[in-house]
Amino acid sequence: MIQYFKYDEWNIIEENFDPSINKISESIFSIGNGYMGQRANFEEDFSGPSLKGSYIAGIYYPDKTRVGWWKNGYPEYFAKVLNSTNWIGISVKINDVILDLAKCMVKSFKRTLNMKEGYLERSFVACLPNGNEVKVVSKRFISVIRGEIGCIRYSVTPLNFEGEIEFTPYLDGSIVNEDSNYDESFWDEVSKKAELTEGYVMVKTKKLDFYICTYMTYEVTKNNKKITPNIDKYEKSKYISNTLTVDCNKNDEIVIYKYVANTSSRYYETSELVNVTKELSNKAKNDGFDKLFKEQINGWSKKWLESDVVIKGDIAAQQGIRFNIFQLNQTYTGEDATLNIGPKGFTGEKYGGCTYWDTEAYCIPFYLSTASQDVAKNLLIYRYKQLDKAIENAKKLGFNNGAALYPMVTMNGEECHNEWEITFEEIHRNGAIAYAIYNYVNYTGDKSYLEEYGLQVLISIARFWAQRVSFSNAKNKYVILGVTGPNEYENNVNNNWYTNRIATWCLEYAIEVIESVNIADPTKFDYIKEKLSFKDSEIEKWNDIIDNMYYPYNEDLDIFLQQDGYMDKEQVLVKDLDSTNIPLNQNWSWDRILRSCFIKQADVLQGLYFFEKDYDVATIKRNFEFYEPRTIHESSLSPCIHAILASKIGAHDKAYEMYLRTSRLDLDNYNNDTDDGCHITSMAGTWLSIVHGFGGLRVSNDKLILNPFIPTNWNSYSFKIIFRNTLLNISIASDSVRIENLTGTNIHLTVFNKDYTLHGNKTIIIAN
Amino acid sequence: MIQYFKYDEWNIIEENFDPSINKISESIFSIGNGYMGQRANFEEDFSGPSLKGSYIAGIYYPDKTRVGWWKNGYPEYFAKVLNSTNWIGISVKINDVILDLAKCMVKSFKRTLNMKEGYLERSFVACLPNGNEVKVVSKRFISVIRGEIGCIRYSVTPLNFEGEIEFTPYLDGSIVNEDSNYDESFWDEVSKKAELTEGYVMVKTKKLDFYICTYMTYEVTKNNKKITPNIDKYEKSKYISNTLTVDCNKNDEIVIYKYVANTSSRYYETSELVNVTKELSNKAKNDGFDKLFKEQINGWSKKWLESDVVIKGDIAAQQGIRFNIFQLNQTYTGEDATLNIGPKGFTGEKYGGCTYWDTEAYCIPFYLSTASQDVAKNLLIYRYKQLDKAIENAKKLGFNNGAALYPMVTMNGEECHNEWEITFEEIHRNGAIAYAIYNYVNYTGDKSYLEEYGLQVLISIARFWAQRVSFSNAKNKYVILGVTGPNEYENNVNNNWYTNRIATWCLEYAIEVIESVNIADPTKFDYIKEKLSFKDSEIEKWNDIIDNMYYPYNEDLDIFLQQDGYMDKEQVLVKDLDSTNIPLNQNWSWDRILRSCFIKQADVLQGLYFFEKDYDVATIKRNFEFYEPRTIHESSLSPCIHAILASKIGAHDKAYEMYLRTSRLDLDNYNNDTDDGCHITSMAGTWLSIVHGFGGLRVSNDKLILNPFIPTNWNSYSFKIIFRNTLLNISIASDSVRIENLTGTNIHLTVFNKDYTLHGNKTIIIAN
Repeated sequence: MIQYFKYDEWNIIEENFDPSINKISESIFSIGNGYMGQRANFEEDFSGPSLKGSYIAGIYYPDKTRVGWWKNGYPEYFAKVLNSTNWIGISVKINDVILDLAKCMVKSFKRTLNMKEGYLERSFVACLPNGNEVKVVSKRFISVIRGEIGCIRYSVTPLNFEGEIEFTPYLDGSIVNEDSNYDESFWDEVSKKAELTEGYVMVKTKKLDFYICTYMTYEVTKNNKKITPNIDKYEKSKYISNTLTVDCNKNDEIVIYKYVANTSSRYYETSELVNVTKELSNKAKNDGFDKLFKEQINGWSKKWLESDVVIKGDIAAQQGIRFNIFQLNQTYTGEDATLNIGPKGFTGEKYGGCTYWDTEAYCIPFYLSTASQDVAKNLLIYRYKQLDKAIENAKKLGFNNGAALYPMVTMNGEECHNEWEITFEEIHRNGAIAYAIYNYVNYTGDKSYLEEYGLQVLISIARFWAQRVSFSNAKNKYVILGVTGPNEYENNVNNNWYTNRIATWCLEYAIEVIESVNIADPTKFDYIKEKLSFKDSEIEKWNDIIDNMYYPYNEDLDIFLQQDGYMDKEQVLVKDLDSTNIPLNQNWSWDRILRSCFIKQADVLQGLYFFEKDYDVATIKRNFEFYEPRTIHESSLSPCIHAILASKIGAHDKAYEMYLRTSRLDLDNYNNDTDDGCHITSMAGTWLSIVHGFGGLRVSNDKLILNPFIPTNWNSYSFKIIFRNTLLNISIASDSVRIENLTGTNIHLTVFNKDYTLHGNKTIIIAN
Repeated sequence: MIQYFKYDEWNIIEENFDPSINKISESIFSIGNGYMGQRANFEEDFSGPSLKGSYIAGIYYPDKTRVGWWKNGYPEYFAKVLNSTNWIGISVKINDVILDLAKCMVKSFKRTLNMKEGYLERSFVACLPNGNEVKVVSKRFISVIRGEIGCIRYSVTPLNFEGEIEFTPYLDGSIVNEDSNYDESFWDEVSKKAELTEGYVMVKTKKLDFYICTYMTYEVTKNNKKITPNIDKYEKSKYISNTLTVDCNKNDEIVIYKYVANTSSRYYETSELVNVTKELSNKAKNDGFDKLFKEQINGWSKKWLESDVVIKGDIAAQQGIRFNIFQLNQTYTGEDATLNIGPKGFTGEKYGGCTYWDTEAYCIPFYLSTASQDVAKNLLIYRYKQLDKAIENAKKLGFNNGAALYPMVTMNGEECHNEWEITFEEIHRNGAIAYAIYNYVNYTGDKSYLEEYGLQVLISIARFWAQRVSFSNAKNKYVILGVTGPNEYENNVNNNWYTNRIATWCLEYAIEVIESVNIADPTKFDYIKEKLSFKDSEIEKWNDIIDNMYYPYNEDLDIFLQQDGYMDKEQVLVKDLDSTNIPLNQNWSWDRILRSCFIKQADVLQGLYFFEKDYDVATIKRNFEFYEPRTIHESSLSPCIHAILASKIGAHDKAYEMYLRTSRLDLDNYNNDTDDGCHITSMAGTWLSIVHGFGGLRVSNDKLILNPFIPTNWNSYSFKIIFRNTLLNISIASDSVRIENLTGTNIHLTVFNKDYTLHGNKTIIIAN
């Protein structure tokens, strides 16, 4: 662990220019607005290490799958989040020398991500090879108010010379995804036009016909006065630019304001794109940078009001949690039920496909508590819309009768990934889709969701499990063979406890919901029954599986066994591993990892987290104390579950240790892979660690429950919670819990096992 | 199963022109000489379905590996058998119309592979789009006497016209491997020259710098008289040709004789290549087609003398076994210890790398009995030479102290394959390398091999196993976790019985050989001990593993268990599978195959075959009767082992059924994949089925043992055996076994458990 950036409550600050960590910084300092996102690449040319990345939500490419040896049932393509037109580019020449920080002496470099107000700023003094010294300050943001708009204020001041500065604002659509399987470009040019002070590039994907149009306008000031320099316009394939030359004296400040709109055929008719985009870009320019920036500050202020977590007495932890909340809010805003949350958000392109079970298992609880109910609901509807594809996916694998297997990785509901050793068998994902429905209904009380959407999904998932189990004569039980559990350091195991457990839970929950929908709205139920050709005999079969499922178990230790044969492994603890082995996935060969006892992420423990109601604290404690010391946490999704369970069993120090790992995972580049992008979905886990972990927040029988504690080295912490239209601010100090109702409605809640009624706009203080 | 070709004792005959099976025929009718090989592509242009393939032994390319998700320990490259310069090409134009069978009416088409004399002949009458009818007869062979030489006699006779026939003999090095991972060409041009009546193309591989030079000479006759037509010469990238125009009348026969030499930098200095190749080609031309062809007949006659199997009363079986022996002799001749036997030989490029465990497990017994002892010895030395690489390979995977893990697939000793789900964990291959040493010494009595080479390999392999086992506290035994056994329809299983068994056998055999070498030659032993830094304490550890190895076992059935948990699978028999499911690998998704009980190829039974001395017939029978009905035989290497064991337990009908599957696997395209090439290594299995199976041949305590039976529908069968410099012809009829000693030395043998001494050049007849 290295501390790359300066601790600060509201900002991420980099104070040295170090090209060797530039790709990490580009990930960390990314900006976005749920509609698009941009890595923190430099506006000017840069020949040092960089992963240039600009991404637009929902625009993807079905790249031909790359597998070693194609086998039946493998998917045809690996959907790629598309790296698209570079819209930030402004090349700069100082007296004919290109400004390129890789070729300059760089002084006073500072990069700041202001999370409170939602912008990226960078300033430096560069001494060019010709001896000219310039000061540059660039500030940019992607508007959270105007989804399509990105703005840049790029300022250059000559410090020790006079002469000519040449600016070339440009748009460049000649982009190749870094993770293209066969180094192919995914874009074709549609049209382009460079005009004076504006221009556009429209490209479309070579498959699926996604169009995006990028339009730029700009203006230039010198010492705060608008100027109109000479302009040369230029066009080449998928590229347009203007080049303007400004004469300047020492200490003149030249500023170029670039206003860019990015639109796509997901929201507009193709024929309208150029006009719409031109209008958006020009409107931004006419409104001006300052107005747009004010909007931005207000927009973020509203977001923080509902989702901020304040930690007093631990600035690193404070920075960590705010960074995670900031990135989550930059990635998904919940207005569009065809979008989802990619594991890297808009900060990189690794993992390609957009949607993993991360959304259901980790992100939904965050959005449930920090945003309007519709945000989480849209994430559920995303899967509902893809039910037909999930049924098709199951059919391809030999299942029938409307059984649905949701994909491990997807863009449009189809399975799409290169990686088959692991993902092929991670069928537990299907359980998480069902669990998210339970979670949503439990939290919001919105049972109508089950009637309208949920039940169909639950029946189709239950049908999958009913076919996927097989009966072992040897065990006289139902078994589930050949799976990978959440612990991806195992492959093709039998009877993964978590998978077996969530499979029967899915059957139980489907039966429960069938009964409740049948009572609540028999007509609706009959409609669903007919639509799905559902037969009552299916329930009989499900009950038989529920009653006769096999769960691996170790009697000596009285623990659930991760899978058959786990105790045959050499039992070594992580603490006894020489540190040169870590991370295992970078130091050990894959076969060695597979046969070791080391666990990548919560597996049995993930089940105990989901189904904690069914287990007493002693059981959770026994399992935690066995599995946690064997867990290497090489998945970003691991520490948060451990933080929550550790909190539950009273292991507060362990909970805090786990919190630190998840909280600053990217900021401190814990797994040595932040250069690829940030671990967006696991950021929800950080929030979970505080709110479900330290705060002990649960919802049961329509009531909010809190069992908070405070880590010893914190003075206090507080978080906001929206629960059934009530916004609460919950503050925990070492001696008290203070709950402020920021809404007018009354709310009932349970704190430390005692019931309270908190009236609208009132506060209660409870001794800790 | 379809009968594509006519039954014939010595020939494979195709009598219809059917482009839809052309790629199958191209594989079946391939010719080769151990040094190079050529698929049965047409000499003239052909725009129909075809896999053009010309291969030169030992020339390969390290193609960039294509994996879905690269993991630590995966190899950097997938070595490819290289498809190289097309040397057979002769384009033909008849009155300006290209002769292309895809665009003609084809009559009287016949393609014959004459296995007795080793040539390919093809004749047809084609009616061209312009109405011209020509008769064409082409005959070609690759010399088994002159390794570098291929000859073609290509005859064209106008049947209903007079006019101009244009011939373009050419060499074309612009070849791309069909299985190139990224569709790249692997060849660069070095030089070329088209001259009158001759020319050459020299190319080199883009990596590793293998050079090959191809030189052609030719002559033309008209009605058996040499003519010298006008010639245009032509060159383009990696290509040279001559174009000659011949005026002819109806029924004139024009014959072009093409003499090609292919040489490589594996055997000559690069600077000499052109001259050497020119000389070889010109010498062939000067000696002439008839002389070369006579050499060919003699060459093959000698091969058949030592390796023929004669079956009376079953022409399909006769054709099958000769086809297999013929292809084996075309693939490997045993003079060069840096060559090995690719699974497709020279008949295709699938599976890329050249050497698999097939060589040790299936091929060595064939060559031991049908060729000089040096042939099998060279196959062993091939692995000895690669010991350092095997140690390096093990080191990459985390093993140390000189442990060696031989690769699953290799060219030069390094592991090289795309396919990692399966091959990564098939560590049992290491056992087969050791077993082959045992097999060789047992058969030949050549114990000096152990001192010179074998012991070092055995110690290094034993060291691998000693590190690869782990101790299970749960079982209080050594276990081997995370492997794939010979049955490749399982992956990452624990305690594969075969692997555990062969692992301990390797330890036992290494200890035995250590002791025997130490006694036979203590100085040599000390030398090896020092060279390998071998410590006596290693033996202690090995003995501990031998004494405490865990073997999965089912008490109820009293059988060895394929792996932990096998009995949890749904137990279905192959006979109860609806035939629409077969082959599983083309109809079921991979995950479904993995969790089914179906077995791709002998696994427990492979162990019982190798170590049959340790098990009584009742044990073998119980295991056979359990596993065979669950075996789907979708590996070409499966039926032969079953044929041998079925013979052993007296299940003669089953043995015969299995024999038929292996014998005509390619001829009848059993697994629907012969278009990719023939299954060369499994052909040795067919021979094993007859000789070790029906013939019951074994060697024990330096003595030959026979326990033959004859399938009920055969009249008789006979096979040749070389045993310690004695050549025997063993004939089995329903009432007698006739053993003819074709050599002057006496030999002791045991037939039906009775000992005999057979004097030189004598015959004994024993009642059956």
